[in-house]
Amino acid sequence: MSARIILEHGAGGRLMHELIRKISRRLNTPSRSVDKAMFKTHAGRIAFTADSFVMKPPVVKGCDIGMLSVNGTVNDLVTMGAKPEYLSLSLIIEEGLEEDFLMRIIGSVSDAARRSGVKIATGDVKVVEKGSCDKIFINTSGVGRVYSNIRVSTLNAKPGDAVIVTGSVGDHGAAVLAARGEFQLETEVLSDCAPLTSILETLVRKKIILHTLIDPTRGGLATSLNEVAESSRVAIEVEEEKIPLKEGVSSLCEVLGIDPLYLGCEGRLIIFTPLRYAEETVKVLRRLEISRDACVIGRVSGRSKAGEVRLLTRVGGVRSLPMLHGIPLPRIC
Amino acid sequence: MSARIILEHGAGGRLMHELIRKISRRLNTPSRSVDKAMFKTHAGRIAFTADSFVMKPPVVKGCDIGMLSVNGTVNDLVTMGAKPEYLSLSLIIEEGLEEDFLMRIIGSVSDAARRSGVKIATGDVKVVEKGSCDKIFINTSGVGRVYSNIRVSTLNAKPGDAVIVTGSVGDHGAAVLAARGEFQLETEVLSDCAPLTSILETLVRKKIILHTLIDPTRGGLATSLNEVAESSRVAIEVEEEKIPLKEGVSSLCEVLGIDPLYLGCEGRLIIFTPLRYAEETVKVLRRLEISRDACVIGRVSGRSKAGEVRLLTRVGGVRSLPMLHGIPLPRIC
Repeated sequence: MSARIILEHGAGGRLMHELIRKISRRLNTPSRSVDKAMFKTHAGRIAFTADSFVMKPPVVKGCDIGMLSVNGTVNDLVTMGAKPEYLSLSLIIEEGLEEDFLMRIIGSVSDAARRSGVKIATGDVKVVEKGSCDKIFINTSGVGRVYSNIRVSTLNAKPGDAVIVTGSVGDHGAAVLAARGEFQLETEVLSDCAPLTSILETLVRKKIILHTLIDPTRGGLATSLNEVAESSRVAIEVEEEKIPLKEGVSSLCEVLGIDPLYLGCEGRLIIFTPLRYAEETVKVLRRLEISRDACVIGRVSGRSKAGEVRLLTRVGGVRSLPMLHGIPLPRIC
Repeated sequence: MSARIILEHGAGGRLMHELIRKISRRLNTPSRSVDKAMFKTHAGRIAFTADSFVMKPPVVKGCDIGMLSVNGTVNDLVTMGAKPEYLSLSLIIEEGLEEDFLMRIIGSVSDAARRSGVKIATGDVKVVEKGSCDKIFINTSGVGRVYSNIRVSTLNAKPGDAVIVTGSVGDHGAAVLAARGEFQLETEVLSDCAPLTSILETLVRKKIILHTLIDPTRGGLATSLNEVAESSRVAIEVEEEKIPLKEGVSSLCEVLGIDPLYLGCEGRLIIFTPLRYAEETVKVLRRLEISRDACVIGRVSGRSKAGEVRLLTRVGGVRSLPMLHGIPLPRIC
């Protein structure tokens, strides 16, 4: 039987220092730096973001909370036009958690960090009594360097922009739903959790003009489009039949009566680029494994009815696609 | 009756955006920046650190989890020789928490940030089901600029250094103990929770040579001294009768059979400086309200018996002061 985490692991003494050393080894990081980090920088713009992850269950098909907590923050930095560089890793662990399970999660953190080219630079460990948290919560924060020729913002979408999505939507949300014991669902849906770093690198190298980047996590594609429409004071129109959707996701959503456009992704990017760049952008994206299903799904239609998102349905109708109301799916990230 | 936080507040939709706007207003921060932050920097060294706070109870005399979560990270940056600049604020909230209580905590965050001169630059909000966390957990991460003429590290304490503490030890730990329902203790002990920024600013301005800065939080003075002794491969000697200890803390510790040298502080700094700077350092510190009880408590005695901390007791004996073993006090921060 695997050893278990006890309260003393978080008390600040000998046992905590040993646990931190063990975690550091798994991360290939000198243990000193899992407390504090210092790095040199030259002049420029630094992006800074933070997120807590409370995913339930902590392991689903294609993703676990360790992988998610790295990619989630990495992708936030990408949407700011930055190359992610350093991450912090803060763990809140429930007393009684198996150490083997913890180390498996740390292994995922380590793999995800290597894949996206970031360094886990600092962090901490807290342990709370059984019943005071749900297995493990992870917070990561990240800093990155903003590419010098990039100015993206959710304020910056403009009439005439094409709206591009880099792949199928709702996969992560569907994978979490399927993993929950409450439904007796057999499905092959894998989480799309992945770092978006290579996408941004490629678009920057190809000198594509980017207005807005957003990753549709909590609240899904529909909510992200609403955020952009409100912040940029524009109306957005998307075509239902163009939105890539996996068979497994759409059948799961039908069974449960959930709209997949509100299901979160963890490895997809929505790109707003002037129409004249749309074709090249899609071509470039399709050459990358992570975005081989990229396509234009709509456009920024104008300034009138600013803040509104409209869906052109398969049967030729038009309906409003509002921001998420209610909770289709809590704790997907 | 105050409104309560519900799961939908964390689901990513309309209600979450409204809550974030409310929090942003309380923080005097534009709500956009409570998602992501970008700042310009010139060349130099950047310090980066992160911490989760799970303090129980979340409010004690002189401190609450909001104030603590700012000062804790601010003080980590100070111990790296940095001027704290930007903080992230990530909340994990238990469903059912009163909104008034949440806003009181956010008010403390706001006050503490103003007092220490940092900007809350980014953050996020997650809500978990009742019973899945204990009221509220807060994670903050921080970045700051390292003063150009400073090179401090726990690796850097040297034989001959004076060991200075900026005030009484164990106040925060004692205040948390006293606030717990399990003991029927009436005490006037206040937490020492405060930002250490003014102390570092002053020492830098006075051109005091600093070898090591450490703030004795979890595990208290004894554990921090052991960390330095191990990292710097030196032996440290401290004199019991010189260590400032408040009457209320020492009597509480006597009743409970706890050694105050293992009780955490949240507004104290341990300073290692060459002996020739010790007198001036203490003089300068005593002029600041926060460190008016500063004093030399010991010295780095040499390289032999490296890693050991010795206490010269009041009665003239010598005993080893090891790192914390066991849990005198979980969840003080």
